Amino acid sequence: MAAPKNILFIMFDQLRWDYLSCYGHPSLQTPHLDRLASKGVRFNRCIIQSPLCGPSRMSTYTGRYVHSHGASWNNTPLKVGELTMGDHLRDLGMSCTLVGKTHMAADSEGMRRLGLEPDSVIGARVSECGFDVFERDDGMRPEGPDGLYDEGGALKYNEYLRDKGYESDNPWHDFANSARDDEGNVLSGWFLENSDKAANIREDDSETPYLTRRGIEFMEQTDGPWCCHLSYIKPHWPYIVPEPYASMYGPEDFLPPVRTEAERDTDHPVFRGFQQSVIGKAFSRDDVRDKVLGAYMGLIKQCDDQMGVLFDYLETSGRMRDTMIVVTSDHGDFMGDHWMGEKTFFHDASVKVPLIVYDPAPEADATRGTVSDALVECLDFLPTFVEVAGGDADKLDHVLEGTSLLPLLRGGHPAEREQVICEYDYSSSPLAGKLDLDPKEARMMMVATKAWKMIHFESGHRPMLFDLVNDPDEVTDLGASADHAAVIDEMYARLDAWARRPAARTTITSEEIRKARTAGPGRTGVLIGIVEEDELPDALTAKYRGRKAPDMTT
Amino acid sequence: MAAPKNILFIMFDQLRWDYLSCYGHPSLQTPHLDRLASKGVRFNRCIIQSPLCGPSRMSTYTGRYVHSHGASWNNTPLKVGELTMGDHLRDLGMSCTLVGKTHMAADSEGMRRLGLEPDSVIGARVSECGFDVFERDDGMRPEGPDGLYDEGGALKYNEYLRDKGYESDNPWHDFANSARDDEGNVLSGWFLENSDKAANIREDDSETPYLTRRGIEFMEQTDGPWCCHLSYIKPHWPYIVPEPYASMYGPEDFLPPVRTEAERDTDHPVFRGFQQSVIGKAFSRDDVRDKVLGAYMGLIKQCDDQMGVLFDYLETSGRMRDTMIVVTSDHGDFMGDHWMGEKTFFHDASVKVPLIVYDPAPEADATRGTVSDALVECLDFLPTFVEVAGGDADKLDHVLEGTSLLPLLRGGHPAEREQVICEYDYSSSPLAGKLDLDPKEARMMMVATKAWKMIHFESGHRPMLFDLVNDPDEVTDLGASADHAAVIDEMYARLDAWARRPAARTTITSEEIRKARTAGPGRTGVLIGIVEEDELPDALTAKYRGRKAPDMTT
Repeated sequence: MAAPKNILFIMFDQLRWDYLSCYGHPSLQTPHLDRLASKGVRFNRCIIQSPLCGPSRMSTYTGRYVHSHGASWNNTPLKVGELTMGDHLRDLGMSCTLVGKTHMAADSEGMRRLGLEPDSVIGARVSECGFDVFERDDGMRPEGPDGLYDEGGALKYNEYLRDKGYESDNPWHDFANSARDDEGNVLSGWFLENSDKAANIREDDSETPYLTRRGIEFMEQTDGPWCCHLSYIKPHWPYIVPEPYASMYGPEDFLPPVRTEAERDTDHPVFRGFQQSVIGKAFSRDDVRDKVLGAYMGLIKQCDDQMGVLFDYLETSGRMRDTMIVVTSDHGDFMGDHWMGEKTFFHDASVKVPLIVYDPAPEADATRGTVSDALVECLDFLPTFVEVAGGDADKLDHVLEGTSLLPLLRGGHPAEREQVICEYDYSSSPLAGKLDLDPKEARMMMVATKAWKMIHFESGHRPMLFDLVNDPDEVTDLGASADHAAVIDEMYARLDAWARRPAARTTITSEEIRKARTAGPGRTGVLIGIVEEDELPDALTAKYRGRKAPDMTT
Repeated sequence: MAAPKNILFIMFDQLRWDYLSCYGHPSLQTPHLDRLASKGVRFNRCIIQSPLCGPSRMSTYTGRYVHSHGASWNNTPLKVGELTMGDHLRDLGMSCTLVGKTHMAADSEGMRRLGLEPDSVIGARVSECGFDVFERDDGMRPEGPDGLYDEGGALKYNEYLRDKGYESDNPWHDFANSARDDEGNVLSGWFLENSDKAANIREDDSETPYLTRRGIEFMEQTDGPWCCHLSYIKPHWPYIVPEPYASMYGPEDFLPPVRTEAERDTDHPVFRGFQQSVIGKAFSRDDVRDKVLGAYMGLIKQCDDQMGVLFDYLETSGRMRDTMIVVTSDHGDFMGDHWMGEKTFFHDASVKVPLIVYDPAPEADATRGTVSDALVECLDFLPTFVEVAGGDADKLDHVLEGTSLLPLLRGGHPAEREQVICEYDYSSSPLAGKLDLDPKEARMMMVATKAWKMIHFESGHRPMLFDLVNDPDEVTDLGASADHAAVIDEMYARLDAWARRPAARTTITSEEIRKARTAGPGRTGVLIGIVEEDELPDALTAKYRGRKAPDMTT
């Protein structure tokens, strides 16, 4: 073992924190990830920065809050000029490459303005959120009356499938994400009634094994130091999985939904709005949940098996000895909990994600197999990677808003963060229209400590509040409780201090600021409030003394 | 008269709002600006966004708060990617050119990252805050033991002076900004004891007439539509002026300083810190103030006379008929008020600036010669200019944080802003060192309505509060008054709602957001929470229905 030379940054999509056996799931066994956890640190309180793919990932890839980078919804472009993981790591001599999903939308307007061509090296990186692309696959090739959701979606994967004999204009849909009935009709995975059927694809050709192989191909071809973002599409919807995973889990394996009648009776217009959306209603149905949950668990089991394949490769190739491995997700999935589906709210089912970090450095031996209860944000990954690459994350605190995890991994007395922040911008959603909200109002923000979680609504609705100690299931909303006014005040003080932070002051370092305090503008001749020249040391006034001039007034 | 085709955007530097006769100064007569006010609207409550040249200007040039653009101190670079006045106006077919000062520092690190060469058209604009440069002159060529404050400072002006026979390695200092004694010694304008002496330069060669001529040269050479930022250096220090202005004003013309003993006894560490700085102490001395004030008033009188020259040119050239004229300043000057000098605090002496807007459009006839009491921010200029150039500022509300002044100029029932915000980042100042503040803590923010002004200190010190109705001189700090707790709460609610605004969400318009609400991702085939295909109109599911596939599971 040695200090890590490379970083394998594995992200799953929509993987709930509690659907791995190392996190306590009773029937879903994930031995490969469990084993990684036994060799690293498993984090129990890792919170994402937005419960939606795009903004969560942009925070992870920039190390900045959504309120700072502004790409607050899927396909809202990350603006030109935001520094990314690739920018930071390449400056330190580490390559940074994508294999899989980012949900990045290029800021083509900003690129036009700055004359950046998408096919130039810099333009391509700006377009791809700073990554060099080995394979970009967002796992999304939906098509509707207005055309494709993503023109470039799953292009290479579809080509792969066609080469393998999956004949279709869109094998991603017809095979990887659909079942088939006995008459040969395609049963689309978009419809949840089909989620309990097997995808019509050889397991080996489905998306998760495909991306595992692509990741291994990258590592085989590449000399370090590298950071590889192996970014899986699953267990994100369409919820459908091939055999043997399709029939692996049944009702006896399902955890009951976490929900109460009191929650359904909420007087909160926004919480109720999400419950009563098409999504909320569908996932509140037991029959739907049962169909989906089998697929969801099967997809996760397949992910774990692929981790087995991957970790075997790392062992045999020697990479396990010089590579930090990080496994996490971009957000969770309500799966009917709290009468909601998807992820666009703030209960732990959505905002807490698994995080397992394996650090080959001998300094990390003391923490192997331990569980950290520290509050962690996905913003903390990039500062960690910067330090692995040999940089000093503290010196980047004018840009990076997180904190390196190395102290937590390597022992000592790390300073732990006291709060976590998560934001959701639903201004583009139908609910914002129903509530008739201005685009600036349809936003919510969560602030949580280990004890409390408060959700603020920019729409002017009252906050929601959960007592995380006495109500870990988050089913009792104390936001209207007069007894909790002081707690709410304290949480608002946290939120608002955060909102006032100087997040845009990215062009000057804290070090430069501290230096300016003592250097003073006098060093370059700016003398303000000086009445007589002998108030200052001669060195500061040398350029203004002993000079002669003719009379030039006439 | 017609709708304005061009914009002449005149900015003075460090011009107090109340040092023009149209704003009520009893002894400083400024007939040319008064006459412009009689033909336009004079705004009584125009507040800048930071009481320091650089950040104030960056807010004016981007139309965004300092908290949004991040260039919070002089020479803190404006980061690549921030949209500027030039970007917005050029998109609308209006050129945007600089004649004079911006205090812009280029983000050379960001430019390097994006491969932008400073000598390319785009790189030059990014370096110059979006302006095409006719002449850049920040009026700053100080020199100290570490070298020049600004390598490019006053280069062209120094060349001009040398051509005129002002022989020196730095005629900007030795002649334009210094006096001379009978033995030919240069008496530097940097030392306030020299401020009551005449600058050793022919009046016509001093900086203000020079820039007026440069502005006229630009207009003579340029076809419209143009926006010309004619940005004067004066009455900013060095406080020294040539004859006849040097001996024009004496103690009988000076207003007494606005200050009380109670202010000097303040218990507020930050307020006290600014009072007790070298600058505060110097400007608290009556002898110093008297020397400086004569020069300051003379400089302003010269500025007004130059406005006479300029307006004559505009009349004779016909430009007065097709050009909007805006006259303002980047901040004021305490001049000993409240025991402070310079501008880096939040009393009106510093944060309120003159604003006179002349609009040749016939729709503005009704408001000519009127005074507007509306709260206005310098952020409002750019949206105004966008509308003059034919754009729709409302459609840019995802980037521009101000509001067009056209409704105030052209009558009707304009919505007026309820509050103004001003920020000051003193993290680079010696005071931050003395108070031992972290670079993120040494910041303050002002929020003001027409009734109240509150100053928040990020350092954790208590707020300051002024009752603007009953204490217009702002000498009684109510920040510690228990009777005013409710007012302070209300002002904090305003400040914090402002801090939470989605200022970084600049890559998607409000219009696009509203459209997305109804369009829905279903239009491009993303179907979430749909159980059966017949839940949706056929058009949305067409690509997923009626498809056939062979069995591909084995």
